[in-house]
Amino acid sequence: MTTVGFIGLGIMGGPMSANLVKAGFDVVGYDITRPNVDALVEQGGKGASSVADAVRDADVVITMLPNHPQVEQVVFGEDGVLANASSGTLLIDMSTIRPETSVAVAKAGGERGIAVLDAPVSGGEAGAKQAALSIMVGGNEADFASAKPLFDAVGKTIVHVGAHGAGQVVKAANQLVVGGTYALVSEAIVLLEASGVDPKAGMDVLAGGLAASRILDLKRDSMIAREFKPGFRIDLHHKDMGIVTSAAREAGVVLPVGALVAQLMASALAVGDGGLDHSGLLRGVERLSGT
Amino acid sequence: MTTVGFIGLGIMGGPMSANLVKAGFDVVGYDITRPNVDALVEQGGKGASSVADAVRDADVVITMLPNHPQVEQVVFGEDGVLANASSGTLLIDMSTIRPETSVAVAKAGGERGIAVLDAPVSGGEAGAKQAALSIMVGGNEADFASAKPLFDAVGKTIVHVGAHGAGQVVKAANQLVVGGTYALVSEAIVLLEASGVDPKAGMDVLAGGLAASRILDLKRDSMIAREFKPGFRIDLHHKDMGIVTSAAREAGVVLPVGALVAQLMASALAVGDGGLDHSGLLRGVERLSGT
Amino acid sequence: MTTVGFIGLGIMGGPMSANLVKAGFDVVGYDITRPNVDALVEQGGKGASSVADAVRDADVVITMLPNHPQVEQVVFGEDGVLANASSGTLLIDMSTIRPETSVAVAKAGGERGIAVLDAPVSGGEAGAKQAALSIMVGGNEADFASAKPLFDAVGKTIVHVGAHGAGQVVKAANQLVVGGTYALVSEAIVLLEASGVDPKAGMDVLAGGLAASRILDLKRDSMIAREFKPGFRIDLHHKDMGIVTSAAREAGVVLPVGALVAQLMASALAVGDGGLDHSGLLRGVERLSGT
Amino acid sequence: MTTVGFIGLGIMGGPMSANLVKAGFDVVGYDITRPNVDALVEQGGKGASSVADAVRDADVVITMLPNHPQVEQVVFGEDGVLANASSGTLLIDMSTIRPETSVAVAKAGGERGIAVLDAPVSGGEAGAKQAALSIMVGGNEADFASAKPLFDAVGKTIVHVGAHGAGQVVKAANQLVVGGTYALVSEAIVLLEASGVDPKAGMDVLAGGLAASRILDLKRDSMIAREFKPGFRIDLHHKDMGIVTSAAREAGVVLPVGALVAQLMASALAVGDGGLDHSGLLRGVERLSGT
Repeated sequence: MTTVGFIGLGIMGGPMSANLVKAGFDVVGYDITRPNVDALVEQGGKGASSVADAVRDADVVITMLPNHPQVEQVVFGEDGVLANASSGTLLIDMSTIRPETSVAVAKAGGERGIAVLDAPVSGGEAGAKQAALSIMVGGNEADFASAKPLFDAVGKTIVHVGAHGAGQVVKAANQLVVGGTYALVSEAIVLLEASGVDPKAGMDVLAGGLAASRILDLKRDSMIAREFKPGFRIDLHHKDMGIVTSAAREAGVVLPVGALVAQLMASALAVGDGGLDHSGLLRGVERLSGT
Repeated sequence: MTTVGFIGLGIMGGPMSANLVKAGFDVVGYDITRPNVDALVEQGGKGASSVADAVRDADVVITMLPNHPQVEQVVFGEDGVLANASSGTLLIDMSTIRPETSVAVAKAGGERGIAVLDAPVSGGEAGAKQAALSIMVGGNEADFASAKPLFDAVGKTIVHVGAHGAGQVVKAANQLVVGGTYALVSEAIVLLEASGVDPKAGMDVLAGGLAASRILDLKRDSMIAREFKPGFRIDLHHKDMGIVTSAAREAGVVLPVGALVAQLMASALAVGDGGLDHSGLLRGVERLSGT
Repeated sequence: MTTVGFIGLGIMGGPMSANLVKAGFDVVGYDITRPNVDALVEQGGKGASSVADAVRDADVVITMLPNHPQVEQVVFGEDGVLANASSGTLLIDMSTIRPETSVAVAKAGGERGIAVLDAPVSGGEAGAKQAALSIMVGGNEADFASAKPLFDAVGKTIVHVGAHGAGQVVKAANQLVVGGTYALVSEAIVLLEASGVDPKAGMDVLAGGLAASRILDLKRDSMIAREFKPGFRIDLHHKDMGIVTSAAREAGVVLPVGALVAQLMASALAVGDGGLDHSGLLRGVERLSGT
Repeated sequence: MTTVGFIGLGIMGGPMSANLVKAGFDVVGYDITRPNVDALVEQGGKGASSVADAVRDADVVITMLPNHPQVEQVVFGEDGVLANASSGTLLIDMSTIRPETSVAVAKAGGERGIAVLDAPVSGGEAGAKQAALSIMVGGNEADFASAKPLFDAVGKTIVHVGAHGAGQVVKAANQLVVGGTYALVSEAIVLLEASGVDPKAGMDVLAGGLAASRILDLKRDSMIAREFKPGFRIDLHHKDMGIVTSAAREAGVVLPVGALVAQLMASALAVGDGGLDHSGLLRGVERLSGT
């Protein structure tokens, strides 16, 4: 039976590791917050007292961490994955981080006989709980094939999109389009309302034509009602827009709209809207317009 | 039987007036280009030799013109609608123009006993030919009800969205979201390609999640293949972004993303891409990135 | 002696017409606000009861009006300049308006034997009072030469910059750079303060190097102190940014930074800062940053 | 006599270290490029074969390096400053890097008894050769006082602007205003030219009023002539705009204009203009406008 060392048992990693246990994997989990480890044990997993402890006997290591500094520490640290996992282990980083770090991790892993995949997800807490995540995977085809059974236990749409880092780039592109669409829909709503047009009637027309989008379908009513209960929080999308900007810089491309949306997201965070759903970007457009 | 004076028999007005004839209306058409009038006559309509001639005995006047200066001339000119149509006539302006002109036309019409609706459309030449346009209507409820049989003869989705000018505002909001979505999808494609990720695999993932949109569904393959045969041309979308900007200014709202997209559209026109489909905005993002 | 018909005797036109009287010109003034006419009479000018009355016997007509709709009405109206001034009159429009209107006025004037100059000014109320305005003049060289003695009576830096409309374009370029510099200085101050750096020490360094500007020299202390007593008001600069945007569109050029600054200025107006000095753009950057 | 270990003897560090020798300091230099070390020896300095070798007996260590990864390696590496300099040494980092790295270096230095100043410069190669740099210093007052004689040997305007990292923040603010001013002046020139106005006449007017700046004074003629021989290169200013963006993110502030200027600078680099003077940003505005 495959033994999985799972590092990072928070809002996403918690239900994901539990789903792996349910699917029959032997999961050894670690988190800096002890109750998160206890929760995994209650679900039938094993608890570890350190990263080293979690990865030492693992066939596969999964990391699900907030951002690249945590990934760097967990992977490269003295107590970390590379120093303690056996050669032949497969490391799957499911965190959303900048592609250049994913590439660096893959390179360092390769030098120690540890294959690496970057496999960021979308779908949020609900997707994690229902094992219905979308997973964008970068790395070698053979490693992707090995990892497939694990991905199947936590996700629904699972796509191998390219070499090391490609998963992160696709995730970044996704967050760029999602964040930008929220900004556009927000501007449309503010324009309609300030012009004295019923926003619901107007947005219904948009949702029926070329302007249609999943965001319009799912969120236009809650946006018009100013209900911004998350869902996916602005502070996390702000982090992701930082990855978009960083990935663009690394790739030498220019994203004028993405850079502006990143500023609007930063503004939402700066004024205290970080805990709202990302559709709350609407409030920033309203603030600019004094409405 | 209702007599319709139809001013503007071009790419859109031509098939629309023909559809009205087919639906049994008595159509008297005028266009500054004589062959356009002849084409209507061939379809069973009547030709007029001036605006005055076309509107004098009309129950309903429809205008379908390039932009607000033409509407102002046709409506307010000596030879125009207000000077020559009878009191009691209904004037339906189906041009896409700035809302403030629609409001001014409605006010001037009202003073002479001529009711006015603004009724811009989306759906393009194909929609005009197939009588499948989306029509966004601003004006009084009763006038909308009177006009409904005519709208049914040329359109499919027909929505009364508010008072005078509201149709134009909804059209502007639509073009804002459509133009912006093209910019975002373009940036996503350029980011993927420059990062060495297969854009098709990547965009397929986006189209399956929260980033999904009708534009991604219909256009991602042609965009990745750099096929930009119109469709709806960049020069027309540039005109429409001017209306977006103008409507926002009039309403006192701030649209940072819309303003930037308007600049990108202006750039596409300036460098000679005006005749491409609006998905050709991708070329501008590529030029910025040197790819 | 030259008789000057002066239309528009407000904050700018009032002191300018008074300075013409002082310089020995025979000034016949008109304004829609009667007390403004009375004020000119007190200074030794003559009052007129209409535009027609003011221009009928004038050798030169000067207009100093809020924006292009007022210029169009005063020039093209039944009671207006073209209908009532004699052939051979010189019309100098010193209003700040969009270049395309200046060109249209010059064309229409030319057809009636009335030469036209566009001659917008900078320097504000203080410059008007002290006869120290900068004047940017578009039109024919010979007409500029004729007008020079009048310009000398109200201005200090007087430059013939090109053909009809060129004065307005230079004024637009000026307002673009001024507005944009305020935005940049605002962002620099907010960055310094939020980083815990004394803004005065920091801005002093900037003012000593390549970042130096007249705005840094004159305004950095009042900006750091948040003193925004006008000077030149945000609502007027908002009008001017509209001219910048319009001039760019007309010329087929793309001004990404100008378009963004126009949005920031629109935001300042929308939230109620229109009566502040334009350096008050700083407040908008603070609002975005939640500081 | 004070012994200075100088790490980084390139275009800037070369002449700076030579000026320290001239001023009577005992300079031990190291650079990864051996001929740079030889050049210092020719000027009367001593050559070192490693960072460790250069700093071991130094009273003061100066680093002048391309960006934060090089600073991190030189300071934190096994062969680096902290591992090899004596307690009591003063470390002055004159590189332009992001403020958060400067703060981290100061903290790590403090823990080992090594005081740290961040002291980025402006003035370019010419300023370095003429010992006429502007130096913006962050750190403790007492350390600044100790370092003052060294700063006097290489710079002219020397300002202590605040705590650790403050020097970098002021440098970032400077580059923000400089880069943005180039963008604004570029847009003004393109607007004038496309409108048929002589740019020289127009820009002369701007340089005489509130739009005046050192950049207009020094660069408008060369920009109009399209002469972009550096001066300060676009690739370096691109690096600096990355620091601006990073510093803003770190400070939690929103710089919409700065973010856009960073994209324009990135575009200039992406299309191959990286070796031009930063005034070459004009070419990007021209490309957008198709002129």
